[in-house]
This record gives sequence, structure tokens and C-alpha cells, in this order.
Amino acid sequence: MQSLIDKILSEGIVIGENILKVDSFLNHQIDPGFMLEIGREFARRFSGIPITKILTAEASGIAVAMATGLALGVPVVFAKKKRAATQDSQSYQTEIFSFTKQESVNIYVAKKYLTPSEKILIVDDFLARGEALRGLVDIVQQSSARLAGVGIVIEKVFQEGGAPIRSAGIRIESLARILSMRNGNIQFDVEPV
Amino acid sequence: MQSLIDKILSEGIVIGENILKVDSFLNHQIDPGFMLEIGREFARRFSGIPITKILTAEASGIAVAMATGLALGVPVVFAKKKRAATQDSQSYQTEIFSFTKQESVNIYVAKKYLTPSEKILIVDDFLARGEALRGLVDIVQQSSARLAGVGIVIEKVFQEGGAPIRSAGIRIESLARILSMRNGNIQFDVEPV
Repeated sequence: MQSLIDKILSEGIVIGENILKVDSFLNHQIDPGFMLEIGREFARRFSGIPITKILTAEASGIAVAMATGLALGVPVVFAKKKRAATQDSQSYQTEIFSFTKQESVNIYVAKKYLTPSEKILIVDDFLARGEALRGLVDIVQQSSARLAGVGIVIEKVFQEGGAPIRSAGIRIESLARILSMRNGNIQFDVEPV
Repeated sequence: MQSLIDKILSEGIVIGENILKVDSFLNHQIDPGFMLEIGREFARRFSGIPITKILTAEASGIAVAMATGLALGVPVVFAKKKRAATQDSQSYQTEIFSFTKQESVNIYVAKKYLTPSEKILIVDDFLARGEALRGLVDIVQQSSARLAGVGIVIEKVFQEGGAPIRSAGIRIESLARILSMRNGNIQFDVEPV
């Protein structure tokens, strides 16, 4: 998605060789109109597949999921990161490790919002080592819902989280694929148009 | 907002006298089209005020803020709940206490996304005891940005969080105002149309 690549190049900040900050439009500040473009692009890439629900994880995935839900006209569910006092026990859960935050968290989805008759599109802002995505895929598999695929805004291909998930036969559509960030230069894998 | 009151009555689950679960469209599952209606209602109520940015707190506020940002055509900033390894030190921060989760958390907003020239609309999903809202107001005041007001989806008026904030001269627009939830019956403060 060229407009996304342009935005990463103009606003992204590379820290070291692994961290890309896109706080200005994706992770802290959100550009809602641009987010809607991202949602429409996911809808275009998965058109023809009868998706019934979007699944993401709080917090940064919510805006992406909301935009995709608007574009596809389907509900969104976001996995919660901690069992709150108000949450019931009827949940699917799995543990994920955040390399960014250096901690494990449990994520939960109430069973009533993921049923076997659903066809789920998982979306998330980043795919790096794949921990969060593996957790979301695990929750979908626990629910026996069908998985239509995965939509990722920015995939850091060099951190290799996507490979084992694709090997498992799951379709991942990433709107920007970063091959390396050496010396502050972001190298994209540009798809043939 | 009658459509919201109807949705709370048909889908909300009251636990005890204080907890209202609206997981089916606001806090866990999101109905994106309905969320956009909520955003448009906030835009209508604050029309004529030159709002430049929406501020909320992760996670449940993000979808509300995204919808309001779409309706008003302005960016959204969400306060983050924990300093991540990727966050810089140039942030406004404040501590808030979550009664739901029974813990204190720090919330952060990068200084570059809240400048004195901004006119901010704070939005959030719930207003109960007002801890989260006080934190967001505090961050706006630290930044010297101007505060246009506050948009709340559901205010639990009986928990009295709104009163001190309104007393400080801050305008709060709540789309559903709940006066009590005794015996599982939700009593709304219905505004004159």
C-alpha cells in the first residue's frame, strides 16, 4: 500500500535495527481518515470471502479493527489483556509475550463472541516476532470458528514472526513489508502492482 | 441518545448495583456502525467549536475516539497506560486509579501530540467515579492546550464522578445518563428533546 509506505518513510522513526515508531498515525496518535483507507484496503484484499467478524488485541489493534469493521460492515471483537473484575469466566484465553514490554500477559475473549459459525479476519497493527498473532490464532482455533486470514498494517519481515504462521497455511496480508532497518534506512519489500 | 438507551436496555447486563456490562457493543465486542453514530452525535453536540484533536485513554476509549475523529475530521490521541520500552521520556503523565481493576496505573501522552495551540475534546466510554477523566483533564491542563469539553457514552451519575468536573466549569456531554441500577432496573435521566 504505497500511501502507507510513504507515511512510514515521512513520519516513522527507526530506533536501532528493530524498533519502528509510528506513533504519529498508528500507535499513539491516530489519523482516522487514513485508518479508514487501511480498513478499506483489507476489505479489498479479502473481498469475496464471507467474513463475519474482525478479531484484534487491545490496544493498538482497536483502531485498525474498527476501520476494517466499518469497511466490511461486520462487528469487531478485541481480546482483552487482563481479566478484569467485571469479566466473566466464560472466556477463551492464551498467554502472549510482549518483547516490546518484556512481559507475559494473558489475553481473553468471551466465548459468546466467537462461535463456530463465525468466519474471522484477524487484524493487527504490527507483526514482528508473531507472539500476539499466535495468541489470536490460538483463540480462534479454541473457538472452532473458521479463520479467513490475517491483515497486518506493518510486517517487520526480518523478525520472522510471519513465516511459521504462513507455513501453517494461514493467509497473511501485510500492507507494508519491511525487510530491514539497518543504519536507519527502511527497506521495503515492494509487491508487484 | 435514544438508540443508545435502547441498546443498553436490550443488551446491557447489570451486576449488583454498580456494574453495567455492555460488552456486546462497547467494551469487548464493538458494533462499528453504531459507534460511528455515537461519534456523529458528539460531533453534533460540539458543533460550532473548533476542535482540533480528540483525546482518550486506551483501551475501551479508542473506538469511541476513532468514530468521533472520523465524524469531526480531526486526529485522535490515546493516552497509553504504561511506559513501554519504545516510548520516549518527553511525555505528560498522571496517575489514575481503576476501581474496576483495583489498581493504579500511569497514563502518558507524548508532549508533541498535545500542544498549546490545540483545542481538545476528551471522549471516553464510561464516566463513573471520574478517575480516568480527571487524569485526562490533568494531562490537557499540563499541556496548556484548551479543553473544548468532554463526551461520555455512558455516565453512571450515581457514582458522582461528573459533579466535581462540571463544578470546575468543564462541559460534559453524556449520551446516556444512568441515575440508578437498583434491583437490576436501569433508571435513565432522560433529557428533554
